[in-house]
Amino acid sequence: MKIVRSSEFRRRKGYVMATEDALEARTPVGRATDRLRGVLFGRRLRTEDEAEERVSRITGLAIFASDNISSSAYATEETMRTVALAGAAGLALTMPITIAILIVLAIVVTSYLQVIRAYPHGGGGYIVAKENLGTLAGLVSAAALLVDYFLTVSVSVAGGLLAITTAFPEVDQIRVELGVGFIALIAIANLRGIREAGVVFAGPTYLYAGAVLGVLVVGFYRILIGDTPAPVAPPRVLEGTEALGAFLILRAFASGSVGLTGTEAVADGITAFKKPEARNGGIVLISMAALFATLFFGISFLATHLGIQVDATETKSVLGLLAQTVVGDGPYFYFLQAATAIILILAANTSFSGFPRLASILASHRFLPRQFAQRGDRLAFSFGIIALAVIAMLLLIAFKASVSGLIPLYTIGVFIAFTLSQAGLVRRWMRLRERGWRIRILVNGLGATVTGVVAIVVAVTKFALGAWMVLAILPVIVALMWRVHQHYRRVEDELTISRTERASLGQRRARIIVPISRVDRSALEALSLATGLVGDVSAVHISFDDEGASAFKERWASLGTGVPLEVIVSPYRAITRPFLKYLDAIDDGDPGRPVVVVLAEFVPHHWWETLLHNQTAFRLKLDLFSRRNTAVIDVPHHLDDVEEFQ
Amino acid sequence: MKIVRSSEFRRRKGYVMATEDALEARTPVGRATDRLRGVLFGRRLRTEDEAEERVSRITGLAIFASDNISSSAYATEETMRTVALAGAAGLALTMPITIAILIVLAIVVTSYLQVIRAYPHGGGGYIVAKENLGTLAGLVSAAALLVDYFLTVSVSVAGGLLAITTAFPEVDQIRVELGVGFIALIAIANLRGIREAGVVFAGPTYLYAGAVLGVLVVGFYRILIGDTPAPVAPPRVLEGTEALGAFLILRAFASGSVGLTGTEAVADGITAFKKPEARNGGIVLISMAALFATLFFGISFLATHLGIQVDATETKSVLGLLAQTVVGDGPYFYFLQAATAIILILAANTSFSGFPRLASILASHRFLPRQFAQRGDRLAFSFGIIALAVIAMLLLIAFKASVSGLIPLYTIGVFIAFTLSQAGLVRRWMRLRERGWRIRILVNGLGATVTGVVAIVVAVTKFALGAWMVLAILPVIVALMWRVHQHYRRVEDELTISRTERASLGQRRARIIVPISRVDRSALEALSLATGLVGDVSAVHISFDDEGASAFKERWASLGTGVPLEVIVSPYRAITRPFLKYLDAIDDGDPGRPVVVVLAEFVPHHWWETLLHNQTAFRLKLDLFSRRNTAVIDVPHHLDDVEEFQ
Repeated sequence: MKIVRSSEFRRRKGYVMATEDALEARTPVGRATDRLRGVLFGRRLRTEDEAEERVSRITGLAIFASDNISSSAYATEETMRTVALAGAAGLALTMPITIAILIVLAIVVTSYLQVIRAYPHGGGGYIVAKENLGTLAGLVSAAALLVDYFLTVSVSVAGGLLAITTAFPEVDQIRVELGVGFIALIAIANLRGIREAGVVFAGPTYLYAGAVLGVLVVGFYRILIGDTPAPVAPPRVLEGTEALGAFLILRAFASGSVGLTGTEAVADGITAFKKPEARNGGIVLISMAALFATLFFGISFLATHLGIQVDATETKSVLGLLAQTVVGDGPYFYFLQAATAIILILAANTSFSGFPRLASILASHRFLPRQFAQRGDRLAFSFGIIALAVIAMLLLIAFKASVSGLIPLYTIGVFIAFTLSQAGLVRRWMRLRERGWRIRILVNGLGATVTGVVAIVVAVTKFALGAWMVLAILPVIVALMWRVHQHYRRVEDELTISRTERASLGQRRARIIVPISRVDRSALEALSLATGLVGDVSAVHISFDDEGASAFKERWASLGTGVPLEVIVSPYRAITRPFLKYLDAIDDGDPGRPVVVVLAEFVPHHWWETLLHNQTAFRLKLDLFSRRNTAVIDVPHHLDDVEEFQ
Repeated sequence: MKIVRSSEFRRRKGYVMATEDALEARTPVGRATDRLRGVLFGRRLRTEDEAEERVSRITGLAIFASDNISSSAYATEETMRTVALAGAAGLALTMPITIAILIVLAIVVTSYLQVIRAYPHGGGGYIVAKENLGTLAGLVSAAALLVDYFLTVSVSVAGGLLAITTAFPEVDQIRVELGVGFIALIAIANLRGIREAGVVFAGPTYLYAGAVLGVLVVGFYRILIGDTPAPVAPPRVLEGTEALGAFLILRAFASGSVGLTGTEAVADGITAFKKPEARNGGIVLISMAALFATLFFGISFLATHLGIQVDATETKSVLGLLAQTVVGDGPYFYFLQAATAIILILAANTSFSGFPRLASILASHRFLPRQFAQRGDRLAFSFGIIALAVIAMLLLIAFKASVSGLIPLYTIGVFIAFTLSQAGLVRRWMRLRERGWRIRILVNGLGATVTGVVAIVVAVTKFALGAWMVLAILPVIVALMWRVHQHYRRVEDELTISRTERASLGQRRARIIVPISRVDRSALEALSLATGLVGDVSAVHISFDDEGASAFKERWASLGTGVPLEVIVSPYRAITRPFLKYLDAIDDGDPGRPVVVVLAEFVPHHWWETLLHNQTAFRLKLDLFSRRNTAVIDVPHHLDDVEEFQ
């Protein structure tokens, strides 16, 4: 083609570069839409700017930690609420269980540090399981993580809403709508790119951590100076009714393990970090774990040391009671409550970083539709962000934004993923036999066992409450991913030509058929194009009766095109079916010979004008699309832009 | 093309005849749908069998008279209900008004007989007005008739429902649903063709006429033999409250004139009759008028002679009271009531014969979408039948099937059409000056004046009750028909080539552009086809970055197709817009040169598989469709029918 010189394209050595002008919409509506997109999502970003869109450690901690850190708001309470069923003897186990959970956290974090180092291109638990335990284990891990990401969004938004409605009962009416709105806002922020999302969401994360740390510091200080405060009592103390047994302890451990959720996010989303990704991600993961451990340990210690009781009415949280005890009922208390509500909602944001990245890796492995692997205008994985938002909204609507309805579904997925990735590492160490492999096997084996036990305990204790849904959906998701993979592989097998193969463009002389309903300008244009093709051209006219047939033949002869005409009389006034059967019939004589159908089409000015024309060409096109060895040529005729009412 | 030999086509002299086999559906779903259609609507009919589908005089009378004849059930009552407002002195005017209406009927019928003779190809009032008063008058007449046809269906079904719910109040709950169901049944019967509809609907019409005639005969006989029965009194007698004035008499006349509705149907639908259409239609029109006149006159005479009173509660009809008076409260009375309910509903059927035929004539004159002019599988004007059914259903739903809500809209349309066709005839006689033209002008002039007065009286007296809606919608319909006409004319002007013109198929060498996203089998097929065209072929690849661009260029060179390649780097990852802008940019060098875009498309096996592929080709096609001088070639690649899970 001729050299292109315009503001839209720049010639470079050997190729043409499309500038931003080449993206401009052609219609006023298109331009308005583009402007709206610009306002909502920001300017388009170039592929090569991807590195600049990555996040620093400070922002990365805020983004990836919000889920994990936010669980410090309820991990202690979840543990105490279970052991409190066994009375004071039970409550005394809070600290031992907290320490046990922190040990498991240490193991999980250690193993994820190893995952990050071994698989710096992301994929986390999915990749570890796939590489070391096989594709099926990888898919199970991926499915569990995907489900958990959906649930994290719904659960944390529902949790934040609960915190809000506790303070302002009047908004309970529009709880679901509010939740959907929050998810939409978080999705929009993420569609602007992870860097901008980080800027928006970093503040609240650090605010919450700082607020809780403040309570802890004041609490420890008051204990040290001997000013130990008397615990504020909840509206109604949860009384012990059960015996203290192994199962109760296990349940308490499993309940408190909710604090481990979110640990996997960094490893899944490692590609979001600036280079070197593995190093930056590792530092973030350790910082996150240290921060969470400090908060969790501090809250558990102070709560048990000061004798905070669990509220049977579930309106006052342990963290709230602890804050009231330590800093009193003043502004600081309300500040902490507000920060808690915000962090609970923003925990959803971690999923918006993790899910699209995991989905993009699955898509690049062809287990999910390829759209998940494409970066949008802002280099974010837009398709994944939108899919996550939509599914989480539907979950929120289906469960009417009820925390107690959603929570039993939560955590099981992430513990399945934990278990599989620890087990995967064990296999890895057995295979590689690097330095210290025996210790590593021991640590990860212990980790796999403990997280596996938690997974089973969660599954058993919450099965009837809703965990069954997750267990039932996992095989379905795995099967779907498998089916998607089979499809892509089949397409690949059929379409791929070897990388060195040379093309042979020789072809059989095509039959070129021009259906003509009427001799007019549009038909002549189609005919013109057809006679310019290499092949045997013929025209086909469908008439409803003999008189029409002979009249058309006469007119055709007088036209003098030289193109042979076949007239089909269709006494039942059908057009598409006899035409298709006619193609089949002439095919019988020379099977497999390519057929090219040239269709004259009419493009009206206004959409309503299409109602005034039979859509025969359109219907033919649809039918021909599914016919083998058949190409269709559209020759649209545009009505000239004359004024309609002269 | 080669000679075709198969069960689907038969070679005739000079053309190919498609047999019914050529219509067979290709898919199981298609075949099942066809079977269902067969059961509902009957076998397909051939165009040449159209003459056999026409109706005889006996069937034609039943079909076209049901509307007019059914109005005998309430014409007397409508008159009496108005004059009764002036007490006994008013009621005494019933017979004079009846006779005046019958005189107008005679004039209208005479004029329609002349219309049928002058315009034997149908179109009735529309054609008369258009030919003699100009297109605008014709469109006004047509619009008025179209509206009246819609309303006839809704009003008569609502009237029949009222008769049913009077007897069985419990079905009032599902009144609207029942009405919609009745309309659907009548529409289905008519889609089977007018002949079959006639067979279904002839019985009830003759049954009703016979039942009323029985009452009249017994009544006259009892009077003759001196056994004059005492009138059965209504639940509450309507008392006179108004003075007897000219306006009241006019209103009574206008109310009773409802009995003239349906007179126009034969002239509009004349093409439904067996040949000679004019003669058969004329006989049917006269028979209909005679039958209606007999019933109307007989009911009015007996009702006044026996002193039947009007029921103020509107639960007992004058016809019902007359029947109870004459034949008593026995089985015959109930038989008459049932026949009345059925004929009221079946009055709708007249519209189903008249509307589609009028619409087909308007469509052939290009004032309505051309679909109205096409005959369906059963040679019925299916599009018109369905349109009428849908609009009448919507009317019925909008007015909740209330007779009193719908009736004020009714009759004004038909009287506008009457007036215009009488006026048209006056103009015709003035122009032609045939034998007796002065008398004819006098008669039709009188007719135009009287029907015009009725139209005005109806418009004035019922304006606020709803007639304003009809008066408001008429100009809208006329404007729409005009706009449709303008569009078709513009298309015609632009597309038509003179009947003697010879085709010049010479063309400019096209640019042939093959967008290629990846070198695979599907792309090579598209390229193969492109190189078989006459023109300058080039391939275009869109890459998201420089590395991709140079890798593709290398692969292309190794392919050895000889087709020049242009690589566009689109750093913002857009595809369709840069491609379209690129076409524009190369167009600038040589404006207006035809462009042919060859698209490799992928046809998956299952619909869900399309979700796994970007619909780039599809979106490009949509955009290219609106581009001038651009033809698109679809080269679909079909996945081989291999088993999916080996």
